[in-house]
Amino acid sequence: MKLSKRAENMPESPIRKLAEYGIKAQKKGIKIYHLNIGQPDLGPPPIVYDYLNKYDDKCIAYSHSKGEQEYLDALVKYYHDLGHTDLSSNNFIATLGGSEAILWSIMTVADPGDEILTFEPFYTNYHSYCTMADIKLVPIETKIETGFHLPSKEEIIKKISNKTKAILICNPNNPTGTIYNHKELTMVYDICKENNILLLSDEVYREFSYDGHEVISALTIEKELEPNTDDSRVIILDSFSKRFSLCGARIGFACSRNQKIMDVMLRYGQSRLAASSIIQQMTTEAINKNIDYIKKVVDKFSEQRQALINGLKKIDGVIFQEPEGAFYIIAKLPVDDAEKFSKWLLTDYNDKNETIMLAPANGFYLTEGLGKDEVRIAYVLKKDDLVRAMEILNLAISKWKTINH
Amino acid sequence: MKLSKRAENMPESPIRKLAEYGIKAQKKGIKIYHLNIGQPDLGPPPIVYDYLNKYDDKCIAYSHSKGEQEYLDALVKYYHDLGHTDLSSNNFIATLGGSEAILWSIMTVADPGDEILTFEPFYTNYHSYCTMADIKLVPIETKIETGFHLPSKEEIIKKISNKTKAILICNPNNPTGTIYNHKELTMVYDICKENNILLLSDEVYREFSYDGHEVISALTIEKELEPNTDDSRVIILDSFSKRFSLCGARIGFACSRNQKIMDVMLRYGQSRLAASSIIQQMTTEAINKNIDYIKKVVDKFSEQRQALINGLKKIDGVIFQEPEGAFYIIAKLPVDDAEKFSKWLLTDYNDKNETIMLAPANGFYLTEGLGKDEVRIAYVLKKDDLVRAMEILNLAISKWKTINH
Repeated sequence: MKLSKRAENMPESPIRKLAEYGIKAQKKGIKIYHLNIGQPDLGPPPIVYDYLNKYDDKCIAYSHSKGEQEYLDALVKYYHDLGHTDLSSNNFIATLGGSEAILWSIMTVADPGDEILTFEPFYTNYHSYCTMADIKLVPIETKIETGFHLPSKEEIIKKISNKTKAILICNPNNPTGTIYNHKELTMVYDICKENNILLLSDEVYREFSYDGHEVISALTIEKELEPNTDDSRVIILDSFSKRFSLCGARIGFACSRNQKIMDVMLRYGQSRLAASSIIQQMTTEAINKNIDYIKKVVDKFSEQRQALINGLKKIDGVIFQEPEGAFYIIAKLPVDDAEKFSKWLLTDYNDKNETIMLAPANGFYLTEGLGKDEVRIAYVLKKDDLVRAMEILNLAISKWKTINH
Repeated sequence: MKLSKRAENMPESPIRKLAEYGIKAQKKGIKIYHLNIGQPDLGPPPIVYDYLNKYDDKCIAYSHSKGEQEYLDALVKYYHDLGHTDLSSNNFIATLGGSEAILWSIMTVADPGDEILTFEPFYTNYHSYCTMADIKLVPIETKIETGFHLPSKEEIIKKISNKTKAILICNPNNPTGTIYNHKELTMVYDICKENNILLLSDEVYREFSYDGHEVISALTIEKELEPNTDDSRVIILDSFSKRFSLCGARIGFACSRNQKIMDVMLRYGQSRLAASSIIQQMTTEAINKNIDYIKKVVDKFSEQRQALINGLKKIDGVIFQEPEGAFYIIAKLPVDDAEKFSKWLLTDYNDKNETIMLAPANGFYLTEGLGKDEVRIAYVLKKDDLVRAMEILNLAISKWKTINH
């Protein structure tokens, strides 16, 4: 059968492409430390279990396409507490994970052939979704040497064409851990304003910041720079997967001050009827009653981050900047081909029957050749496990050097 | 902000477009019988509650992008029991409701500007998803007088162009309740074969058949007509929303014998990481342990169907054919504008403080003017409620006639 071009072009997940080798290694009895995926190994807020364990709704009925009112109200309260007191439930829609919010927002702004700018390395599924929606994702390079902070306005503007419909940012950033500062965000917003395009801001990792770095929402910048507009240009993409360790639940939302955008989102929402009612209700409980969970989790990640940094510093030839937020880091390894190395870790290497799984970073770049010697590491595992994982990485690099040089 | 053309073109759900009037009516204290939406008012298989009430997984972790192995294994068993014994777990992928299976399958076969044929009236979200994916949905009319059975091969072939990539059928049909017979399905398959295009078959209502009508899967027809192909042209779209009354859970799957198609589906799956692990596990329990639930439900629907038919027969001027399957019927009402009438039922009519909500059928057609005097009725309510709802419909039509003539 001849399949569509978009089907043929669908990229494979760089986070999951080594999965089959991992499974084979596990079958051989090798323990794997998963550094490749942002799956925290801690449980969700306890109220989640209380909710499920008491669940007795007579029907498991369709939710409203917009979301359960209680969920939307909880989002409003959460956003009010963040300082966005002008928002009401009309500014939110429930989504099946942050993923659905990405798909809908890019489809809201761009038609086939249109372009969306983003900064590479980027969250790889931006590219997947643009491929599905036949949108050209145009990458603007950021560099490890400058902590993946944004290039100059001139560099960014160069990439804008008459097909550019939006700039898509992730802040705090997956995969780099970078938090954009006020100056950077203002610059990006100004570019959007000057070119009358939209700003899509993925703020899934909002609470995950370290060493006092401040996370500023695109909603705040909008309020500062276009306070009185009826025609808001910001869409927030968000999810509780990370904040509440609810990766397997699939619950997120989109948010915008622009009512026309929210109306379109509702129509997208109607096309798939609704998000899961059970999951929305369960998450509502967590937002309303266990919001303090987030602080504890971030404290834990802060420790894990330090363990990772300490471990990486011990490895000769590894280059990285200390991540400011989220729970990822991009590290440049002293290997010529990080993908080959990552695969080898699963197929041919182990130390005392243990190895690690990394995410080769080339999949987070679109520009050919970039990221070839880089990997993304998620520091979501327990501190002791991260210490051991860094030890394995160190040993493995030494071994790799003896084999390949 | 200038939004995309696809955003501007997104249709509003005809099933949900009257929702706001319904809410207003309820606020006035009027009870509404919801005939507009296929939301059974009975609970899911009991094991679902056992599962949730005992849930204590330490993490709520990402599932595999393909689905939980246990869920896929349960699907294999379910399909083996249906007679498709050649299928293995490689032929399935978990989706977030049947909706995601629709989106992925149309994107797998068609690029922007390509065409997919379907029979109108059709499940309205086919059009929504084609709009999102910039695919042209080409409708072929079926008629109430012939029970919405398929037109001749000549009529269908006329609509095929060099842009046609697939025929999309829903069997048993939502919104018409029609079950296609062996001859019709063979004809459709032959057309696909002769034009080397794909057959997308939405079989969500598989078990819902009445009066001995047999439901034949496109997989069966494929096995008969192209038994030895390595290049299968059938994709099945499926869901447990109706079969297990799990509308609010959002759990479905896609199935194909074509491994290349399943590989593409996996990449789509990776783009949104995974379906909900909790919901997959819960549904697995129901498939493995409460499969007999389906028979009970279908018996109940069979009674409700009879109540609806009896009620409709009592109303002067209503035209319909007895539905063969699913739990919907399209009825032609003696009103000039069914949408206006349906809205009036909510805004200006009640009998003893009770009214009904219908789905105007024009939204299930693409061809302008078709379905204007038709409504879709879902017979998902308790028998007594349906009897009362038909009484209200009868009274309301009489009243409407006195006002509008």
